[in-house]
Amino acid sequence: MFDNSEETRTGLSELGEFGLIDHLTRHFAPKHSSTIKAIGDDAAVVDFSNKHTLISTDMLVEGVHFDLAYMPLKHLGYKSVIVNLSDIYAMNAKATHITVSIAASNRFTVEALEELYAGIKLAADVYNIDVIGGDTTSSTSGLFISISVFGEAEKEAVVYRDGAQSNDLVVLSGDIGAAYMGLQILEREKQVFKANPNAQPDLEPYTYLIERQLKPEARKDVPKLLKELDLKPTSMIDVSDGLSSEIIHLCKNSKTGVKLYEEKIPLDPAVISVCEEFELDSTTIALSGGEDYELLFTISQSDYDKIKGNPNFTVIGHMTEEHEGMHLITRANQAVELIARGWNSMDKESEEA
Amino acid sequence: MFDNSEETRTGLSELGEFGLIDHLTRHFAPKHSSTIKAIGDDAAVVDFSNKHTLISTDMLVEGVHFDLAYMPLKHLGYKSVIVNLSDIYAMNAKATHITVSIAASNRFTVEALEELYAGIKLAADVYNIDVIGGDTTSSTSGLFISISVFGEAEKEAVVYRDGAQSNDLVVLSGDIGAAYMGLQILEREKQVFKANPNAQPDLEPYTYLIERQLKPEARKDVPKLLKELDLKPTSMIDVSDGLSSEIIHLCKNSKTGVKLYEEKIPLDPAVISVCEEFELDSTTIALSGGEDYELLFTISQSDYDKIKGNPNFTVIGHMTEEHEGMHLITRANQAVELIARGWNSMDKESEEA
Repeated sequence: MFDNSEETRTGLSELGEFGLIDHLTRHFAPKHSSTIKAIGDDAAVVDFSNKHTLISTDMLVEGVHFDLAYMPLKHLGYKSVIVNLSDIYAMNAKATHITVSIAASNRFTVEALEELYAGIKLAADVYNIDVIGGDTTSSTSGLFISISVFGEAEKEAVVYRDGAQSNDLVVLSGDIGAAYMGLQILEREKQVFKANPNAQPDLEPYTYLIERQLKPEARKDVPKLLKELDLKPTSMIDVSDGLSSEIIHLCKNSKTGVKLYEEKIPLDPAVISVCEEFELDSTTIALSGGEDYELLFTISQSDYDKIKGNPNFTVIGHMTEEHEGMHLITRANQAVELIARGWNSMDKESEEA
Repeated sequence: MFDNSEETRTGLSELGEFGLIDHLTRHFAPKHSSTIKAIGDDAAVVDFSNKHTLISTDMLVEGVHFDLAYMPLKHLGYKSVIVNLSDIYAMNAKATHITVSIAASNRFTVEALEELYAGIKLAADVYNIDVIGGDTTSSTSGLFISISVFGEAEKEAVVYRDGAQSNDLVVLSGDIGAAYMGLQILEREKQVFKANPNAQPDLEPYTYLIERQLKPEARKDVPKLLKELDLKPTSMIDVSDGLSSEIIHLCKNSKTGVKLYEEKIPLDPAVISVCEEFELDSTTIALSGGEDYELLFTISQSDYDKIKGNPNFTVIGHMTEEHEGMHLITRANQAVELIARGWNSMDKESEEA
């Protein structure tokens, strides 16, 4: 769906900092009446009225969080926005504004950054977000993207990580593991390409997995759905680092234990078949894969009827008393202790170092 | 004033991403009742009530914006906050919250980042700011700091860049040029040190200049002073890139011209004497030096009595009709056209490349 053309090559220094900001953001018209002043002054001005304001920020680093060998810049721009929006939806809130700062080396042309910003703009349009500020500067090497995201929620609607109680049901939106297996496919193709640049890979069977990796979507619909269902989760988090890592966050913050059921974890058939191809255990991938940007939340048992049979949600376990610990109950009915093996950058770095 | 000790060396990977955030931010207790939730969830939650919210963000890149050869990490942390706060004060607003994201290579130890965060905490304490979030990640090389700053103002108090009218007076807080000359001193000492590591420099005569470069302060007091004087500027900007660049921003946004008077530009005696030492023209330094973080604003002539004789402010010129252009009137009464030679990173990069 993305067309990544790079025919013209304009050096970054030809525009200068102010010229570059103006150039890259010239199509970013505000959509929200709350945006009083967007780009073009010392600060943006926003009217958050009587609601709570949600603020989150994420930094993406070339060589750590993304590899431009298989990540087109437009996809990267899109994904950079998505990973931030996901944090706001994970508070049961509506994302409304972002700021985008980038540091890029001389290796990047203006046209390359235009591709990046085209992806940012597409995400902003699809998710109804105003881009209200940012910074562009040079780096000595590599590309760094720092995005801050802002959202709003009625004061009583915000869901934190610390509200789960023993016996609450653990619920997951969508399915997981696909983004991680998409990455494995892309890494494999990169090696194949290095060995033989003329090889023509058939990626058709992996479309879903690769799209989950290269063009993930955030669950904007979930806070809306929950509101329609008159259902307020007791705790919530987004699945960026893997199911295991995220449920441990909820348990630690809420001071509970948990039982997750292996047979309940929702996997796409493509994840199962590619795990077989790679000789990987699909449950391990689901637990530690990451980057799916689904929402993981807990609800009171008395709210079960509100989501029963809803195709968006799967109950995968329940919270327990803290002293009972955090476990996965396998298909063989064995309790395995959950450990945080989330796919986060520092872990990745230390594994590689 | 800062003690930069680095005796213990803990590798970044020893703590992991979550451990590192917890570790570095463990002393950052919220100070504002508007901070509902700071660090520790998917997003921070802030209650901005009925005021306008100001948002700004800046990215600082090692080798582009700072040189760790003469910038101690604690000073760097302090300055990183200051340059952001300055953007909020430049909107005539009160800064209240920041988020701090850093990407650091394996070259940096936990102790080094603790020094950085000690400077961030000091600035947050001095300026009454809540640190409500951020991200720490690894970089393949160098240190990147991305800070977003939030502030609040009564809706009618916010001052933009575009409100100046012909005949408005141009006013500057404090004095300018010192931060740039401080940088020249530090660059010179770095070369001396490279040639002879045992040389003991006498930096005593340059204390003010070096402090303006290494530990600048933002003019938090100015919005407060203006309120006490019942004076709302017609336009305002902070002097981060040099007086010339900043006044051009005000003129272009307000569609005016300007006459600045060379003899009125406030310079510290140390700037004048060091400019002589370096054989530099002090007016050129004042116009293009940058990093002073003073505030430049315009006021209606009818408000002149409110600032007359106030030691915090100097009238340095007046706005004109747009077609009259933007000029500096020299001591010899010649009109020289102002050009943007602001000391911004992209310009710097292109000059160096």
